[in-house]
Amino acid sequence: MCGIVAIQGPNEAAKLTYLALHALQHRGQEAAGIVAAGPEGFAKHAARGLVADVFDHASFERLQGNRAIGHVRYSTAGGSAAANTQPFLVETMRGSLALAHNGNLVNHADLRRGLERDGAIFSTRSDTETLVHLLARARAPRFEDRLREALAQVEGAYSLVIMNQDRLVGVRDPWGFRPLVLGRLEGGWVLASETCALSLIEAEFVREVEPGEIVSIDEFGIRSERLVHEPDAKRRPCIFELVYFSRPDSQVFERSVYDARFAMGQQLARETGVEADIVVPVPDSGVPAALGYADEADLPFRHGLLRSHYVGRTFIEPEQSIRHFGVKLKLSAVPSVMTGKRVVVVDDSLVRGTTSRKIVRMLRDVGAKEVHVRISCPPTVFPCYYGIDTPTREELIGAQQSIEQIRDYITADSLAYLSEAGLHRSVGDEDPEQSFCNACFTGKYSSGRARIAERLPVLQA
Amino acid sequence: MCGIVAIQGPNEAAKLTYLALHALQHRGQEAAGIVAAGPEGFAKHAARGLVADVFDHASFERLQGNRAIGHVRYSTAGGSAAANTQPFLVETMRGSLALAHNGNLVNHADLRRGLERDGAIFSTRSDTETLVHLLARARAPRFEDRLREALAQVEGAYSLVIMNQDRLVGVRDPWGFRPLVLGRLEGGWVLASETCALSLIEAEFVREVEPGEIVSIDEFGIRSERLVHEPDAKRRPCIFELVYFSRPDSQVFERSVYDARFAMGQQLARETGVEADIVVPVPDSGVPAALGYADEADLPFRHGLLRSHYVGRTFIEPEQSIRHFGVKLKLSAVPSVMTGKRVVVVDDSLVRGTTSRKIVRMLRDVGAKEVHVRISCPPTVFPCYYGIDTPTREELIGAQQSIEQIRDYITADSLAYLSEAGLHRSVGDEDPEQSFCNACFTGKYSSGRARIAERLPVLQA
Amino acid sequence: MCGIVAIQGPNEAAKLTYLALHALQHRGQEAAGIVAAGPEGFAKHAARGLVADVFDHASFERLQGNRAIGHVRYSTAGGSAAANTQPFLVETMRGSLALAHNGNLVNHADLRRGLERDGAIFSTRSDTETLVHLLARARAPRFEDRLREALAQVEGAYSLVIMNQDRLVGVRDPWGFRPLVLGRLEGGWVLASETCALSLIEAEFVREVEPGEIVSIDEFGIRSERLVHEPDAKRRPCIFELVYFSRPDSQVFERSVYDARFAMGQQLARETGVEADIVVPVPDSGVPAALGYADEADLPFRHGLLRSHYVGRTFIEPEQSIRHFGVKLKLSAVPSVMTGKRVVVVDDSLVRGTTSRKIVRMLRDVGAKEVHVRISCPPTVFPCYYGIDTPTREELIGAQQSIEQIRDYITADSLAYLSEAGLHRSVGDEDPEQSFCNACFTGKYSSGRARIAERLPVLQA
Amino acid sequence: MCGIVAIQGPNEAAKLTYLALHALQHRGQEAAGIVAAGPEGFAKHAARGLVADVFDHASFERLQGNRAIGHVRYSTAGGSAAANTQPFLVETMRGSLALAHNGNLVNHADLRRGLERDGAIFSTRSDTETLVHLLARARAPRFEDRLREALAQVEGAYSLVIMNQDRLVGVRDPWGFRPLVLGRLEGGWVLASETCALSLIEAEFVREVEPGEIVSIDEFGIRSERLVHEPDAKRRPCIFELVYFSRPDSQVFERSVYDARFAMGQQLARETGVEADIVVPVPDSGVPAALGYADEADLPFRHGLLRSHYVGRTFIEPEQSIRHFGVKLKLSAVPSVMTGKRVVVVDDSLVRGTTSRKIVRMLRDVGAKEVHVRISCPPTVFPCYYGIDTPTREELIGAQQSIEQIRDYITADSLAYLSEAGLHRSVGDEDPEQSFCNACFTGKYSSGRARIAERLPVLQA
Repeated sequence: MCGIVAIQGPNEAAKLTYLALHALQHRGQEAAGIVAAGPEGFAKHAARGLVADVFDHASFERLQGNRAIGHVRYSTAGGSAAANTQPFLVETMRGSLALAHNGNLVNHADLRRGLERDGAIFSTRSDTETLVHLLARARAPRFEDRLREALAQVEGAYSLVIMNQDRLVGVRDPWGFRPLVLGRLEGGWVLASETCALSLIEAEFVREVEPGEIVSIDEFGIRSERLVHEPDAKRRPCIFELVYFSRPDSQVFERSVYDARFAMGQQLARETGVEADIVVPVPDSGVPAALGYADEADLPFRHGLLRSHYVGRTFIEPEQSIRHFGVKLKLSAVPSVMTGKRVVVVDDSLVRGTTSRKIVRMLRDVGAKEVHVRISCPPTVFPCYYGIDTPTREELIGAQQSIEQIRDYITADSLAYLSEAGLHRSVGDEDPEQSFCNACFTGKYSSGRARIAERLPVLQA
Repeated sequence: MCGIVAIQGPNEAAKLTYLALHALQHRGQEAAGIVAAGPEGFAKHAARGLVADVFDHASFERLQGNRAIGHVRYSTAGGSAAANTQPFLVETMRGSLALAHNGNLVNHADLRRGLERDGAIFSTRSDTETLVHLLARARAPRFEDRLREALAQVEGAYSLVIMNQDRLVGVRDPWGFRPLVLGRLEGGWVLASETCALSLIEAEFVREVEPGEIVSIDEFGIRSERLVHEPDAKRRPCIFELVYFSRPDSQVFERSVYDARFAMGQQLARETGVEADIVVPVPDSGVPAALGYADEADLPFRHGLLRSHYVGRTFIEPEQSIRHFGVKLKLSAVPSVMTGKRVVVVDDSLVRGTTSRKIVRMLRDVGAKEVHVRISCPPTVFPCYYGIDTPTREELIGAQQSIEQIRDYITADSLAYLSEAGLHRSVGDEDPEQSFCNACFTGKYSSGRARIAERLPVLQA
Repeated sequence: MCGIVAIQGPNEAAKLTYLALHALQHRGQEAAGIVAAGPEGFAKHAARGLVADVFDHASFERLQGNRAIGHVRYSTAGGSAAANTQPFLVETMRGSLALAHNGNLVNHADLRRGLERDGAIFSTRSDTETLVHLLARARAPRFEDRLREALAQVEGAYSLVIMNQDRLVGVRDPWGFRPLVLGRLEGGWVLASETCALSLIEAEFVREVEPGEIVSIDEFGIRSERLVHEPDAKRRPCIFELVYFSRPDSQVFERSVYDARFAMGQQLARETGVEADIVVPVPDSGVPAALGYADEADLPFRHGLLRSHYVGRTFIEPEQSIRHFGVKLKLSAVPSVMTGKRVVVVDDSLVRGTTSRKIVRMLRDVGAKEVHVRISCPPTVFPCYYGIDTPTREELIGAQQSIEQIRDYITADSLAYLSEAGLHRSVGDEDPEQSFCNACFTGKYSSGRARIAERLPVLQA
Repeated sequence: MCGIVAIQGPNEAAKLTYLALHALQHRGQEAAGIVAAGPEGFAKHAARGLVADVFDHASFERLQGNRAIGHVRYSTAGGSAAANTQPFLVETMRGSLALAHNGNLVNHADLRRGLERDGAIFSTRSDTETLVHLLARARAPRFEDRLREALAQVEGAYSLVIMNQDRLVGVRDPWGFRPLVLGRLEGGWVLASETCALSLIEAEFVREVEPGEIVSIDEFGIRSERLVHEPDAKRRPCIFELVYFSRPDSQVFERSVYDARFAMGQQLARETGVEADIVVPVPDSGVPAALGYADEADLPFRHGLLRSHYVGRTFIEPEQSIRHFGVKLKLSAVPSVMTGKRVVVVDDSLVRGTTSRKIVRMLRDVGAKEVHVRISCPPTVFPCYYGIDTPTREELIGAQQSIEQIRDYITADSLAYLSEAGLHRSVGDEDPEQSFCNACFTGKYSSGRARIAERLPVLQA
C-alpha cells in the first residue's frame, strides 16, 4: 500500500503535492518523498516518517518549480535504506526521470535477473527500480511508446506517476487493481490515488484514470492513450480499497467509500443479526460500518470506544509489567456506555486476533454483559500479490483456524463475518466486467503468474 | 488547564506516572514532566512536547524509585522557559520538595510581591513557584500543618500533588474547582486528575479527593485531613470539565463525562430543535452530544466530518494561496453523506468563530442544503480565574456579538446554544450545595478576590 | 574553572558576548549561557555544549538589547541539570538579576544551611545560587552596598559579573584569585576573564579589575568602589592561570602568558637539563615551555607530536581491543623526527600519569632512543579550594608517589618537574605583596576556612 | 581530495575502518561512509559530517563482519545528495559490489554519455558511479580481469578500494597520482590512503601499492597483478600531497611528509632569506616548513599564532559589524611575541590571498614591525584534473596577479614563494622516472586528455 500524487501547472507544485500527500497519509506512514522539476533541474527530498515531519521550509526551498510528483510508503518491501524512498529519481540518456509507484510486480525477480545479466546495477531491492531500468532501456522515440515497451514486460499491479523533462504521465495496469484519479486545478492538473487528495487542495475531480490507460500532461495539454499488451484483461479493482484502505470521504472506483462501508454494515446486520442493546464501532475505521449495522438492526449506536490522538510510534512499557499496555494506549472504553449492556462491536478486519481479544477484555472489564464481534468483510485467507502487505498465511488467523476457534481465542460471545456474496452486493457489484478482485478471500488471482503462485502449498507475501 | 499524577508504591513508579500522563494528555500538550524519588535522591525530567516525545529510555534510567509525581501543561502562563516546566523541584531546609499544580491562584501577584520583599528569588512567573515558597517558609513541624499554613494565604483554584522526603500528598482547594481522584494500585496508591488515568494503568478507582481535603500517603498508609481556612466555602466544581475538558471515559465530579455530554445533546435538541435530515458531530469532542441530540430529535446520526490522525504542530502552507488550509488539514467532509441534506452540526464550544465558519463552508462545498450549528453549552462571556486559559473578552466572540451576528459571521442557516438552565439540568445539578461554578457564562465568581475582579470593566485572563 | 563576560553599550551585545565566550572556550567546554537585557526584559539562553553549538540564529532573536553577560562552564560541580547553567537569572523585589561566577566559595555549605533555615528554596547545588540569595536578601538601598553586604558573608574565590535593571557590575574577591579585565569597546565597556576575549571583539584593554574592586557600569559611565570586609587580604592570584589555564595570547595578572610559559621552559632547562638531541612539546599547551626549554638548552625544537583537530566527545572503540586508542585518537608521533633520537618531551602538567605513559610508549614505538619527560611546574599535591576542579588527593599521582615511582610508571628514562622557587622566579614574582597563590603545590591556603580545611586528614576537591 | 580505507580479517572490521577514517579526516571533512560485509550481506552507513559525528553505536550494530571499506569525502563534485556519499554500494548480477574512490576521471563525461546511450541509469553526478557501471558491464570471468576491462576505458587519477562477495581489491592508476599503502594487521590486511591510518590502528606498514598495480585480498591470501592498458605511463605522484594534503606523520610516496616540509622550509630560507627577528608558522600545517626555515636561517622559531580548537562550521557574526571575524575566530596572535619584531610568516599555500591579508593585519595590530610572508611552494596557476578541488583560474590569485601585486594586496613588507626547482630538490626528486606531477604549477599534464584540456583558453576545475 502506498499513495501517489503528481501535479502540473501551479507554482509551488511541491507544496501542493505535500498537502495532497498529507491527505493520503493513511495509505503509508513509513516514508514520504517529493521530486520537483525546478529551473535548475529535478530536486528530491525524501525520508522516513510522516509527511508533516519529513518536510520543512528548507526542503521547499530546494523543491522549486511548477511540476512535482510525490509518494507515501507503507511497506518495508525493498528494505528500509534511505536510497529506497520513492519517488525514484535517476539520470538517463534522455535526462532526469522520476517515478512513483503504488502496487506490486509479480514477475519482478525474473525481470531483475535479466537486467543484471545485461550489466544493470541496482541500489535497492524495490520492484520499482526494475521498472525504472526497463523504462531507461526502452528504445522507442516517444515516451509513451517506451512506457508501453517497458510495461509489456511486467505483470502485476501498478498505478504510476512519472515525470520527465517535458511531461507528467499517469498510468494504471490493465486490471486496474489500484486506484488513480485525475483532477483539474486552477492552472493545471493533478493525479492522485484518491479523491480526498483533490478535495484538500481544492482541485476538481474529473474522472478515474481507466485501467490500462496512459494519461500524458505537458504544456500543450492532456492526452490519453492505452496500453495494448493485455487486451483481454478484465477490470479487477481491489475490494479492500473499499473495505479498509481508502479514506471514507474519497470516491474510489466510482463509489463513495463511506456509503460502501455503511452498506457493508447494513448487510452485516442482515446476515449476522444478534439480540443486543447497543452497537459500538472500533474507531475510526469501523465507524461507517457500525452506523450501517445500527441503522439496519435498529439498535442505538454508541461511541463507547475512544481512540487517543497522541499515540507515538514507540511507547515505553514498564519492564515488570505482566500485561502489555499496547492497545490500551490507543483505545479506551467508556464504562457508563457499556455497563450491563449486550454490545455489538463492529470492526473492518481481524488479522491476527490479538487486538480483538484485547478489545473484548476491555469491554468486559467495564461491565459489558455480552460482546458480539462483527467484521465487515470475509476472513482474509490468501496473500495478496497486488500490493497489499498481508501477513503470511501462517500469521493469518483466518487461514489457520475455524471461526469458532477464533471466537474462542478472542473470548467473544459470538463472532461473525460478512459473507463474500454480501460484500459484493454491498458495493453494488453486479456487472461481471467490473467484478472486484477478491483473491485475498477466494484465492482467485487475476493475472497469469499469480495464478501459478496460488497453486503453491506455502504462500508468502 | 493541566493534568497531574502521583504514584506511590510500585517499582518503576515513573513509568506508570508516564502512562498515566499519557492518559491525561488531552489536559495539556505543551509540556510534560516527572519527578521521581530514587535511592540517590529526587530526579526530574521535563521538556516541552507530548508525553511520548519528552521521555525515552535514557530518561527512565534517571527516574528510579517507587514514588513519582507528574504533570502535563496546557497554557503558556508563566512563560515558556525550560525552568518553567512542572513539577517544580526545589531543595529546602527539610530536603527535596516536588510539587505539581492544576489550577490558578487569584491573589498570586500580591503574594509574590510580599515574598520578594522578604528576599525571595523567583526563577519563573508561575503562580506555582509562589506556592513552593510559601510551603518552604511555613514553620509548623508537621508537613500537613505547613501545607495548611501556606494554603491559608492563598485564594483560587488548586488541585496539587506534592512529594517530599517521606510522603506523597494530594490536596484540593475548598471550592473543589479542579478534579482529583484517588486510586488503589497493587502495592500502592495513585492520585490523578481523572479516572481515565487510573483505567490505563489498571488502578482501581477509590473515590474523589474532597474539596478542602488533604490526603497523605506514606509507607505506613494513607490519612485524610482538612484545610480549615475557608470554612464557608461551597463546593463549586468547574462545569467546563464536563462540557469540554475531561475525557469522555472519565468519571469526574461523580458523573460520567460521556453521559453528561449525551444529556447535554438531548437537552440541546429539546431546546433548539430544527427541521433537518441528519446530525453530524464535530469530531472527536462533539460526538457524545451529537449522539444525544440525534437520539432526542430522532434523526439519523452520521459521521460526516472526519478528523485526521496525522496533523503535526506546524504545517507549511503555499505562500501564494489566498485561502488557508488550516481546518481542512484537520477535518474533511464526506460528500455522499452531505449532498442535498439539511445538516445539524453539533460542537461543544464556539470561541472565536473562525473554525465554525470554515466547517460551515466545507459542508456547503460538498452539497449540504442547510447547515444548523448547535453548541452544547451557553456562550462563554467572562474570563476564568480558576485555571482555564480563556481568550480575553475582546477575543470571545460570545462576549462581543449577538447570536444573530455570530450566525451571520459563520454563515450558518441557524445557530443555537444550550441554555444555562439546560446545562445545569443536563448534569443533574439540583443540590445547591453542589452547584457547579459557571462564572465563564454568568460572571458569578465564587471566591473573594475574583468577585472584586469581576467588577473591573476590562477583563483579562 | 569557568570564563565570564559582560558587555554594555553596543547593539547586539549578546552576539559580541558570544564571540567573547568563544575566545574563552578553553576555560570551560561543558556548558555555555548568555543573559541579555532587551526591551522586553531579560532573556536567557544556555545549554550544555560548546559555544558554537549552544547558540544559533533563533537564540539571538531572543537575546536582544545592548547589555549582556555570559558564562562558559568547565566543572560539573553543582550537578549537570539544565537549571544549573549560568548565568543565573532570577526575579527579585527589585526586578531581574543575572549573575555569572568564576571561582569557588569555601563557606558555601554553611551559608546555604542558614538560608534554608530562613525558608529559602534552591534549584541547584551550585555555590553561585547561594550568592544570588545573599544578594536578593541584602537590604541597603544602593546595589553596590547590597553587593558588599552579601560578599561580606562569603569566603573564597570569585570573579563575578552581574547585571540588573540599570547597571553591569564586575567584582573580584579581595585576594584576586581569578582574573577579570576591563576593556573599552566603541560605544561601551567589556568585562572578561582574559584579554584574549577583548582581542577577538577588538575591544581595547584598559586594565585589570583590582582584587577587592567593584566596577559599576551604567548609562552615565563607569565607577570604581572597593569591598571592605577583608582589609588585610593580600593579593594572591592563582599561579595555575599562568602555568596552564589561560590562553597564551592573553595578558593575565599583568603578565604575558606566553612569555611566562617560555620563561618556565627556560628555567626548567636550567634546573633539569639532560643530554638529548631534540625537544618536543606535548601540543598545544606545552609548546611555549618547550620553546623556552629548547632555547635555553640550545637544542633543536621539533614538532614531533601532532594533535588532531577532529576529536569529538565520544569515540567508539572496538570491543575486542585490548589496548584503548584514547590518546592515539588525539595525538600521533612523527616517526622521522623521533627515530634514533634522545627526546625531551615538555608538558605543562602530569595529573594521573596515564597520558604521559601513553605518550612515552608512542615515542618509543616510532623509534625514540631515550625519552625524558619535563613538567613546567611542581607536582600538584594539594586540592584547590579556589575554583580549580582538581582530582582528589587519592587520584593525584604527585600526592601519592615519589618522582622516581612516577618515572617508573610512565616508563620514561628520566622525569623532572620545575621547582617551586623556579616557577615563582619564571613569573617574576619578587614582590611579596603580589605573591601568587600556590596552595596546590604547598598546601598554604590564603583564606581562613581553607586554612582550617588544610589540616583535615582526607582532602576532597 | 578524499581518503579511502579497506580492511580484511579482523572481527569488527567496520570499527577499525572507522578509526582509520578518523586518521584520514584531514583528506575530507564533508562526508564519511563505510560498507561492511556481514553475515546477512553488505550494509552501508554514510552521511555528511565528520567521522566522529556520522557513526554511533547503532550504526556499528548494522556494520557487522570481518571485511569493510570506507571513505571520507572532501569535495562537493557530484552534488551533495545523500545518494552521493561513498562508498558506492550496488547490486549486480554477481552480487553486491562496494567501491570507494580517491581521484578524478578526466574522460568521465564521454564515458557516461556512452553508458546512458546503452540504457544505464545514474543516481548521482559522481565519476565514481561511472566506474561502477563499467565494472558491472565487464564480461570477463575473473574479477581482476573485469577490473582491467573497466579501467582500460578510463583516463585519470584513481586509487580505489573495492569489495565484492569474496575479495577486497586495491588498485592505483598507472601514473600513481594518488597514494595508497598496504598494511598488515594481526589477522588481516589493510589498504589506506596514508600510513597515518595504519599507525592509529597499529597495523604494520608493508609497502606502497605500486602505480598500475592491482592488489587482491581474499581468504586464501594476497596477490598482485598489473593493469596493462597504459604500458608507457610514467610514475607521476602528486607533489601537493607532500606540500599540503598528507599528514606530517605519514610516509607518502616513500618519503616522510614532515621531513619533506622541513626541507621545503630550509630551501625557502636559502632562496628567499630576509633580515628578520623571528620565524612564525601559520598553524598547524605551516609548522614543519617554518621550523626548516628557522633552522636554515638561524632565526628563533616562535609560536606566535595560535589556532583555536573550537571552531565550528557556522559561526554567527554580528550583523552591524563592518569587519568579519572569520579568521580571528580561528587564529589569534600573541602580542608579546610580535611587538617590535620583524616577523617571517611561513605558510604552505596562498590561494585567494584573503586569509594572508588578515594574518598580516593581525600581526601589525599586535605590534609587528615588519611582516615577511613566505610560501613553501610555487604559485598555483593551473587547475588540477587529478582529484584536487582547486578554485577556477579566475579565483587563483597566483594565476591573475604578479607577486608584487599580491604582496601589495596582502599588505606584507615582502612576499616570496619557493621555486619549482627548489620544491623538487626538497623532495629529493632526482630520478626522472619518479618525477612528481606538478601540473598545477606548470600546466604540464601527464595524461592524454588532460594534455588537450591544457590548451583550452579558460580552464575550470
